[in-house]
Amino acid sequence: MPSTQPARGTRDFLPADIRRREYVIDVVRRVYERYGFEPLETPAFENIETLVGKAGDETNKLIFKILRRGEHEGTGPADLALRYDLTVPLARVMAEYQSALPKYFRRYQIQPVWRADRPARGRFREFYQCDIDAMGSTSPIVEVEVIAAVSEVLTTLGFQDFHVRLNDRRLLSALLAEAGVPPPLETDAFVALDKLDKIGPDGVSAELISRGIDPAAAAACLTLFSTGGDSSEALTARLEARLGHRREAIQTVATIRALAEMTPAAGRVRLDPSLARGLSYYTGAIMEIAVPDLAGSLGGGGRYDNLIGMFLGRDVPACGFSLGLERIIVVMTERGMFPPAVGSASADVMVALWSEASRADTLALAGELRRSGLRVDVYPDPDKPGKQFKYASGRGYPVVVLAGDDERNAGTVTVRNMRTSSQMTLPRADLAAHVSRELTRERVEP
Amino acid sequence: MPSTQPARGTRDFLPADIRRREYVIDVVRRVYERYGFEPLETPAFENIETLVGKAGDETNKLIFKILRRGEHEGTGPADLALRYDLTVPLARVMAEYQSALPKYFRRYQIQPVWRADRPARGRFREFYQCDIDAMGSTSPIVEVEVIAAVSEVLTTLGFQDFHVRLNDRRLLSALLAEAGVPPPLETDAFVALDKLDKIGPDGVSAELISRGIDPAAAAACLTLFSTGGDSSEALTARLEARLGHRREAIQTVATIRALAEMTPAAGRVRLDPSLARGLSYYTGAIMEIAVPDLAGSLGGGGRYDNLIGMFLGRDVPACGFSLGLERIIVVMTERGMFPPAVGSASADVMVALWSEASRADTLALAGELRRSGLRVDVYPDPDKPGKQFKYASGRGYPVVVLAGDDERNAGTVTVRNMRTSSQMTLPRADLAAHVSRELTRERVEP
Repeated sequence: MPSTQPARGTRDFLPADIRRREYVIDVVRRVYERYGFEPLETPAFENIETLVGKAGDETNKLIFKILRRGEHEGTGPADLALRYDLTVPLARVMAEYQSALPKYFRRYQIQPVWRADRPARGRFREFYQCDIDAMGSTSPIVEVEVIAAVSEVLTTLGFQDFHVRLNDRRLLSALLAEAGVPPPLETDAFVALDKLDKIGPDGVSAELISRGIDPAAAAACLTLFSTGGDSSEALTARLEARLGHRREAIQTVATIRALAEMTPAAGRVRLDPSLARGLSYYTGAIMEIAVPDLAGSLGGGGRYDNLIGMFLGRDVPACGFSLGLERIIVVMTERGMFPPAVGSASADVMVALWSEASRADTLALAGELRRSGLRVDVYPDPDKPGKQFKYASGRGYPVVVLAGDDERNAGTVTVRNMRTSSQMTLPRADLAAHVSRELTRERVEP
Repeated sequence: MPSTQPARGTRDFLPADIRRREYVIDVVRRVYERYGFEPLETPAFENIETLVGKAGDETNKLIFKILRRGEHEGTGPADLALRYDLTVPLARVMAEYQSALPKYFRRYQIQPVWRADRPARGRFREFYQCDIDAMGSTSPIVEVEVIAAVSEVLTTLGFQDFHVRLNDRRLLSALLAEAGVPPPLETDAFVALDKLDKIGPDGVSAELISRGIDPAAAAACLTLFSTGGDSSEALTARLEARLGHRREAIQTVATIRALAEMTPAAGRVRLDPSLARGLSYYTGAIMEIAVPDLAGSLGGGGRYDNLIGMFLGRDVPACGFSLGLERIIVVMTERGMFPPAVGSASADVMVALWSEASRADTLALAGELRRSGLRVDVYPDPDKPGKQFKYASGRGYPVVVLAGDDERNAGTVTVRNMRTSSQMTLPRADLAAHVSRELTRERVEP
């Protein structure tokens, strides 16, 4: 028999899991809509050349590739690949539908992506990204709106202790040059520095050196990039003293921080010269959300003014942010942040089955209850009532409805409260209203 | 430059597309919940051995296979595959989580599946299935509840002219035996007969013969399976006369039809001896939804009492139905069944940007409007007001809010109705309430 486990690094979601996921997704979607972002979706797979070479070598290695159609055996050449993010497909979409889309297109996209990464806590091979991107403007208003939207998502979910790490790729480049990293090795340095959280300064130093960066330059990088616990203001002053020639980037970062004070991100944005981000397509501001008890981030993003140009032939400025659904759920679960009702039983009522002869009547009762909006399960086999009640109780259904032969002859129906085991027989015409009242009481009382 | 089109047979969904899809999915989900089904999701890909050999040879050929991890070139062996339906992964889940799931588990699952099929109208390589399945009982109540739920979905969406074709694999087997098809070729005959809608009687006859079925038996099949426009009652009588020894299947089908009269499927279920369904895992009742103006079906399903056993080692009875989201949307779009508001502009208000110096104030205004629940876009660049108004008008935003230097000094703000071009200046404190009133009026008036 085949294994019954999901493929390595992927998960099945049972009903209670889905209800928690949908609770988070609903908040994300509602907030994103309030910021004027519109929904968009793209296919799970793309032509392989769409994906390869857009986000750097590190990402190329993680692409799941699909055998060419018509190959029915277990091996062959690949022509399609699963998307590893939602940004590269968006860039393709921007090029393809340019004329149908507004100049300042704001879109959100909540879909899974796939990476052949080594699975670890909170790191899966299939995971959902909740992305927003704003295209068409180089104004720092875009960065601020993006930071504000993800901050509002997190505060709405109940997060109080997150902050937004902010840096700029142009500053990073200047610092790397200053440290003695030659420009062709810049992307390698970003990838290595991005792992500071995961592998620590020694690990980063080793990786920088293994990627061909001079040991002295590697050491200089780490010194330059340490924040030393300084405030954003002190860091800005330090950067200005050191990198006066990159005033534009310093100014952008300062403007973003200042404007963010007018939004739900107020007080949360911190300049962090050590923030690198692993993807190669960023060109300006980069950011990440950090919470104290999670190595790694709840999400990240930045400005990428050249990526759409790789598909369109002319550049369209863009900036976006991606929240990681799995990471958010891991932290919310550990901290007990989900409201208790999320993930509880599905049906409001179960209609019991008295006998095979009463099947039609049972279905009619279920129909009446459903027409009043209730969620109704029907017990399908004519087991003894005691067994049926036990089943309903095990499932957590608050109310069971039953019509035996006597009730059916009298035009009545019996309603059982599963918590108190009290029963009441009433005219059928009153059924739906009575059950609704019973449920309201149960939701207040227990 | 890479092509900017999505991969063959797949589609991008722009905002108006997504809003139509979400409208349908919301109805599907709400109705499924009222029938006591609970949400479940599984990964996009499975280990290859989970999928191969579960639904027949025809389906095996359509599986998209994924290169083994670590193969970084464009070719190699495959160990994973994209799911082609939601039923086989469910069977795996039932085996894996048996002890955590209730005896009568009802689940719904709305997710994409992938098939390397030849793309055609309404037929894509990536498409969404909206599945319900009820496990644990052999009672015909299960078939009836499933048929009732999908019928209620369709009537809620506004479909009035669909019917449910009903047959039973046991009847089909008996008819095939009667026609002279040897049992080992039964599945081949199902696959060929399933194409009657698509390729007509001559096509089916040719395919039956090409699959090794005797020409006389092929002709007998087509005669036996034609309904000749007879009523379900007449067909039942004919089947009983011919297949008295398959009374059980005939009785099941009759019971399902009778009980369905107590549900939203009343008057819609028709016995159709020519219904075959292509998948090999069905064991009892099979059904399909037909509408007059669509070759092919809006969805189909049936009973499969042995599939879970292929993973668990002991059989668990099950019956399910899958609605095809794409087909439903194709028909609804052609018939103009979507409410006009579905698919319209996203934001309620745009906040214009007066000057670079007013960026902070613009963001504050947007924040105030969002706090009252409105969906707000912010114009990011300090263009002339006329240009900004033109943009808002092109996007269909009903209201624009603007605060120039005078207004900011006076603590006021100007609200422009984009339909009438009338403007009003009011105290900032009144802004959100005024805009909400304006929007309510706009939604009633135009």
